[in-house]
Amino acid sequence: MQFHLNGYRPGDPHIAEPAAAQGGSGVGALPETVDVLVVGCGPAGLALAAQLSAFPEIRTAIVEQKSGPLLRGQADGIACRTMEMFQAYGFAEKVLKEACWVNETSFWKPDETRPGAIIRSGRIKDTEDGLSEFPHVILNQARVHDFFLDVMKSSPSRLAPHYDRRLVDLAVDLDASPDAPGVTVRLERQDAGHQGEIETIRARYVVGCDGARSAVRQSLGRELRGDSANAAWGVMDVLAVTDFPDIRMKALIQSEEEGSIVLIPREGGYLVRLYVELDKLKAGERVRNRNITERDLVAAAQRIFSPYAFDVREVAWWSVYEIGQRLTDKFDDVPQDQVQSRLPRVFIAGDACHTHSPKAGQGMNVSMQDAFNLSWKLAAVLRGLAGPALLHTYSAERQAIARELIDFDREWAAILSGTGKDGVTRKPDPKVTQDYFVRHGRYTAGTATGYTPSLLTASGEHQHLASGLPIGMRFHSAPVIRLADAKPMQLGHVAEADGRWRLYAFAGRDGAAPGSALAALCRFLAEDPASPVRRYTPSNADVDSVIDVRAVFQQAHRDVDVEAMPAFLKPAKGRYGLIDYEKMFTVDHTPGADIFDLRGIDRDGCLVLVRPDQYIAAVLPLDAHADLAAFFERFMLAPGEASAKEPDRVHPGR
Amino acid sequence: MQFHLNGYRPGDPHIAEPAAAQGGSGVGALPETVDVLVVGCGPAGLALAAQLSAFPEIRTAIVEQKSGPLLRGQADGIACRTMEMFQAYGFAEKVLKEACWVNETSFWKPDETRPGAIIRSGRIKDTEDGLSEFPHVILNQARVHDFFLDVMKSSPSRLAPHYDRRLVDLAVDLDASPDAPGVTVRLERQDAGHQGEIETIRARYVVGCDGARSAVRQSLGRELRGDSANAAWGVMDVLAVTDFPDIRMKALIQSEEEGSIVLIPREGGYLVRLYVELDKLKAGERVRNRNITERDLVAAAQRIFSPYAFDVREVAWWSVYEIGQRLTDKFDDVPQDQVQSRLPRVFIAGDACHTHSPKAGQGMNVSMQDAFNLSWKLAAVLRGLAGPALLHTYSAERQAIARELIDFDREWAAILSGTGKDGVTRKPDPKVTQDYFVRHGRYTAGTATGYTPSLLTASGEHQHLASGLPIGMRFHSAPVIRLADAKPMQLGHVAEADGRWRLYAFAGRDGAAPGSALAALCRFLAEDPASPVRRYTPSNADVDSVIDVRAVFQQAHRDVDVEAMPAFLKPAKGRYGLIDYEKMFTVDHTPGADIFDLRGIDRDGCLVLVRPDQYIAAVLPLDAHADLAAFFERFMLAPGEASAKEPDRVHPGR
Repeated sequence: MQFHLNGYRPGDPHIAEPAAAQGGSGVGALPETVDVLVVGCGPAGLALAAQLSAFPEIRTAIVEQKSGPLLRGQADGIACRTMEMFQAYGFAEKVLKEACWVNETSFWKPDETRPGAIIRSGRIKDTEDGLSEFPHVILNQARVHDFFLDVMKSSPSRLAPHYDRRLVDLAVDLDASPDAPGVTVRLERQDAGHQGEIETIRARYVVGCDGARSAVRQSLGRELRGDSANAAWGVMDVLAVTDFPDIRMKALIQSEEEGSIVLIPREGGYLVRLYVELDKLKAGERVRNRNITERDLVAAAQRIFSPYAFDVREVAWWSVYEIGQRLTDKFDDVPQDQVQSRLPRVFIAGDACHTHSPKAGQGMNVSMQDAFNLSWKLAAVLRGLAGPALLHTYSAERQAIARELIDFDREWAAILSGTGKDGVTRKPDPKVTQDYFVRHGRYTAGTATGYTPSLLTASGEHQHLASGLPIGMRFHSAPVIRLADAKPMQLGHVAEADGRWRLYAFAGRDGAAPGSALAALCRFLAEDPASPVRRYTPSNADVDSVIDVRAVFQQAHRDVDVEAMPAFLKPAKGRYGLIDYEKMFTVDHTPGADIFDLRGIDRDGCLVLVRPDQYIAAVLPLDAHADLAAFFERFMLAPGEASAKEPDRVHPGR
Repeated sequence: MQFHLNGYRPGDPHIAEPAAAQGGSGVGALPETVDVLVVGCGPAGLALAAQLSAFPEIRTAIVEQKSGPLLRGQADGIACRTMEMFQAYGFAEKVLKEACWVNETSFWKPDETRPGAIIRSGRIKDTEDGLSEFPHVILNQARVHDFFLDVMKSSPSRLAPHYDRRLVDLAVDLDASPDAPGVTVRLERQDAGHQGEIETIRARYVVGCDGARSAVRQSLGRELRGDSANAAWGVMDVLAVTDFPDIRMKALIQSEEEGSIVLIPREGGYLVRLYVELDKLKAGERVRNRNITERDLVAAAQRIFSPYAFDVREVAWWSVYEIGQRLTDKFDDVPQDQVQSRLPRVFIAGDACHTHSPKAGQGMNVSMQDAFNLSWKLAAVLRGLAGPALLHTYSAERQAIARELIDFDREWAAILSGTGKDGVTRKPDPKVTQDYFVRHGRYTAGTATGYTPSLLTASGEHQHLASGLPIGMRFHSAPVIRLADAKPMQLGHVAEADGRWRLYAFAGRDGAAPGSALAALCRFLAEDPASPVRRYTPSNADVDSVIDVRAVFQQAHRDVDVEAMPAFLKPAKGRYGLIDYEKMFTVDHTPGADIFDLRGIDRDGCLVLVRPDQYIAAVLPLDAHADLAAFFERFMLAPGEASAKEPDRVHPGR
């Protein structure tokens, strides 16, 4: 689809300009008590709220200082890994349709034969083949917000943000019991007719997703630390007429004397974003003191693009900034030395705890992954499925990832700005830039994230059973055929953002035949008192509501008999006891290699356990029943066990 | 996605049940005069209204006798060809996501070794490989309506149906000038507070999409003619528990003594539709006199499914009917012998002019294709782009297609009910059924439709230049790479439901080099006074607003230079003169064969001209400039030409 032809217009491009003006949005009062208060309607806050909104029994509120949804500008890069997460949230296809796909990246360098001119030095696929079933795409952050807001609006809880709320202060009652709303937050209303009114809301958990100047972070006494790199960059979304041939490609352009541009084509076929390098800043100088104008940015871009014309017809949005990679040492309110004795109550996510150079396209992506990591854990605790100690893993996992990314970012920014590890500035070497870009494609795609062994990440003892599905990394989907209806699909797409664990049982050569390891597994899961499915599934809930077991067979689908399958793989669900036929899959030979080959799965079969946020928790032999049970035992609570073991259930009746 | 688990629930399955009740829908007054009045909110009426709603300068109204949108039941099969049309309307991805995909069809026959039992006799892919880029899917007709309503609601004209309107009568003023609203329609309001009020609306054109009992058809004095086959069928949507292994497959089940079932799995993973054969009817007997109940249908199904259990937990919808393939001799108000002297004013589409056996899944699909055929023609005439004689082609083209389909349906129904061509009933031969099913896959997929040579369909003189793109048939898409951004995509997906013609210029070996046939074509189209692009594009409109030209190169995309392309393929558009980079494509080697091989395109290149409804109008050599001009000359009007040649422009100022 195409749009923005006659000027940038915010909002859903499917909806044409109306004949009559549209009205405003409603504003309500905040509830007095909630389970989770989310502060901030950026990508992290909305991803978090959207996930929590799936659970009507959890009372969530989300507040935002601005007076309404974001309309333009800011982040735009959506990594492959983020698309996989969007698939779980249910709107990947909307993003695929509306976004600009980054298919190739081109590299431009100074033309040695023509002073002051640039010339193409190379062209590569943006994403290596097979890295993800999704492409890397570009879409206005505001539209990503819209999709999350749609999820919230369509959710059972019909969650919607309260805008015009400024956080005044936040206090944690360290003596409150874990299931009490121990955090008190005061907010100042800023909406017409209510300006200055103070609302007090008590929450069991508070999550600060309120950006780099996070008031929540400040209330915890935490700081963003790190060097402000001394390169100044301008960013602008423009509609322009140019003869630069790669204007619809992602392009890294390094000129001889005039600095560099990162060019990002944008959704709709016409808009482009330029990140324009400005002069180096002096020590201590701040970019906001430079009085840089839109006109300066355009002029700089035009010099860099030479000999190509670049005639800007409209600047849809622009900004200037310094590159600053900064990080907070901990992402919750518990000091490191009190982790054993105190449970977290307040969390920070996204820019509130780490900031990145925009050019690697990481900020928005990492922020949403923070939220996806935290939200299922909050839901598990609030729903009484897990003890609150689980919440410690959020800061532990995500702070390490943020640090890794900042290291990556810093290296990348240095390369782009031509500053070597020795701190000396020299002309960037196009060859180095391109090589680095290729090597770090997995970082950029968001698929390099890996969690180290912990409560939630098992050891690699059995990793060889699924060598292409590394423990601690995201479950890498592959094509399969759904047995009951022969539908070709991606196995990973059975994972929805619904707080459930997935246990993929890759069957051995003997499938589910009597005496097979899979048949024994099904028997264990269905009947054994030690079965985690039996232990942790509430008695009135469907058998797959906590742990969703899916079997994958290595035979062609017409050679696998639905009738002969164990009843556990054809579970009766809901009030009618209808059979769920979507638990059984076979390989798909269409792409050449099947999922066993693509992911290095042992033909004797294995178990791959995947967390609700799509990360691989464990790889085990099919018959490792006790290991499987022991893994869940570390953090899960059986119904009834909660009040005895830990007094933390907000809805003990569930 | 899964839904209906706890009972059938109409509406968007993305939207969970709300905590509070939702309000009703608004009701307004009809305008006094419109360009087009559409009568009936079925698939034909909504497809027509949705297409017309794309043109804000056309005043459209759509009325419906019922008091609101359809919620359940009725048609559900969506052919591949219909998915291609949905792609043009912009909602194919929504249907792909929500629908049940028919991947395979299984066949069941009496088990010779076990009296009274059925056994699987075969299993085939439902759609032959490469027939379409879309699968055959199943989705509740009500959801298809919703998607069209969304298109209307999001359109510039914000078109919405007026419900509670019963057509009283309709009168055509044969003396009215073509551009006057010569049809007067009286409607009776049935909404609360307005019952019995008569509204009079004057329209330039009226389209009756008001079903098999069409009041519009009756007002024209036309009749549905054809034999009522004497087989009675019941249809029901059920939630059931069964051990029948193919319950999630499309299955044709023929029992020894108890009749047959067509089983259609439905969206959401649980619902299934059964078409159950009931007893043969006696001559003259009507099915409605049988007093068949829901219980009878369930019992019949259970007998046919034997030895499998079939325990129905909920019947979401059911109905009984006789198979009746019937047809009207003409689809407009002009008697055959007055075609030369009179212009059509009133049209009928869908069930109003042809009815089909539901089991071939044709009814809804053919109805929407009627609408797609008619709507662009109405829009072209109303926008002053074509003379009103074009409208004669609607009945000519669609009546022939409907007749062909009814012949197909009749044969198919006879096979299923076991009635031979000699009228003698015998046991259906499963082998014959399966063979017939395979042979007629293209009919079922909707891709067998072909228009014979006419005003809109050129002769086959140059067909050999694109042997896989037969003139008169739908443009069969294939993968390509978009040159400017290296995006892999389907070429056919550039065709939106926007009333535009597409001219695909497949370049020769020399691409667009100076002296090439493509370069000469671009020069002709851009500069020659005889160029149809120059002649028919209004002076204030974008160059591609009437005829959208796209070039396809046979080289790999990195070997084609954007800079060297003719300016005509990089058109400046809109108020800023921004360049549209999406006119140029190259082959995609990923699928093995490229588009030239897949569609039998001559390596010396050719032109493929495609109508706004995706049907191929002409295949011509690249240098057939005069032939191309002559083709459009037959029915198009140049701006300013209209008033001189034919007094039919409703908006002469455009």
